Amino acid sequence: TNCVQDQTFGDDFRTQLDLLMRLRRDVRRFRTDPVDEAVLARCLDAFSLAPSVGLSEPWRILRINSDTARAAALKNFTTANDQALRGYSGDQAETYSRLKLTGMQEAPVQLAIYCDDGTTKGHGLGAGIMPEMRRYSVVAAVTLFWLNLRAHGLGLGWVSIIDPKQLALDLDVPSDWRLIGYFCI
Amino acid sequence: TNCVQDQTFGDDFRTQLDLLMRLRRDVRRFRTDPVDEAVLARCLDAFSLAPSVGLSEPWRILRINSDTARAAALKNFTTANDQALRGYSGDQAETYSRLKLTGMQEAPVQLAIYCDDGTTKGHGLGAGIMPEMRRYSVVAAVTLFWLNLRAHGLGLGWVSIIDPKQLALDLDVPSDWRLIGYFCI
Repeated sequence: TNCVQDQTFGDDFRTQLDLLMRLRRDVRRFRTDPVDEAVLARCLDAFSLAPSVGLSEPWRILRINSDTARAAALKNFTTANDQALRGYSGDQAETYSRLKLTGMQEAPVQLAIYCDDGTTKGHGLGAGIMPEMRRYSVVAAVTLFWLNLRAHGLGLGWVSIIDPKQLALDLDVPSDWRLIGYFCI
Repeated sequence: TNCVQDQTFGDDFRTQLDLLMRLRRDVRRFRTDPVDEAVLARCLDAFSLAPSVGLSEPWRILRINSDTARAAALKNFTTANDQALRGYSGDQAETYSRLKLTGMQEAPVQLAIYCDDGTTKGHGLGAGIMPEMRRYSVVAAVTLFWLNLRAHGLGLGWVSIIDPKQLALDLDVPSDWRLIGYFCI
């Protein structure tokens, strides 16, 4: 009765999928040459295939290109990282201070990805008692995007040491957008 | 200079990966015969490969087996779903009432997956200013698990129409665990 069947995917694919998950990394060192835009677009297709609660598709993707916006984001990280460092002491502080925690100085593609908590798409289906499901939908989409990138030989770094309130001011985003992360590619 | 290279994964794999993402579905109709435990275990390996902030690995997975726990969870869903229905009116309410939104009555494997917000693993690295990153780590892991399941011909349904407070009481989970979802497989 243990009848698990799937003719769609074979052992070879499953082995490669496992390898992809093993090789997926949070990347902090980046080459500076441009990313092929066609490849990036194909990787971003993950968003249209991702699960989202009530098909609300609440992801909002901002590409951070201008020197001004990048400098503001980097300053935001530096401030938040200094603050995080002050939360440690002794050997832990020493170790923390030596970590490279972002590739924002050099990564050729940088994205701020938000969840639109105010979207009416999906009419609230499935997000009544757990409204955080919209944010979780964005995270699931980012995870698929991350796999696509790695399958194309591109790395992603997820920066969470950043003050969402300051970034929202710097990027002038709507008040009901919630930051999911700042991403280096 | 658009030098995207990856000898690890080829076009065939990328095509299959895209197909996997397309075929992944939120499943609400389940066969009732048991899931092969070895296959389930292999799919759960996704958790050990998933990204987590500061390597905090905050996922906590409860398998819901007893008739008592399943009945409590189903009652929880029914109550939450009735409440959600009252949020709609007219045609929307009519449509909503006809939706099948869970497979909790029949799915052979059911999991409640939590984020341990109080874990000290990772020493808070990367989760200082965005503590929600721990929850997002669990969502990323669930997403990889979902792909593994589909690659093995198994379906997953993510139930978010459930009251986390009531479920925590029924399952007697620690107070700093946060429900990510109730999953049917």
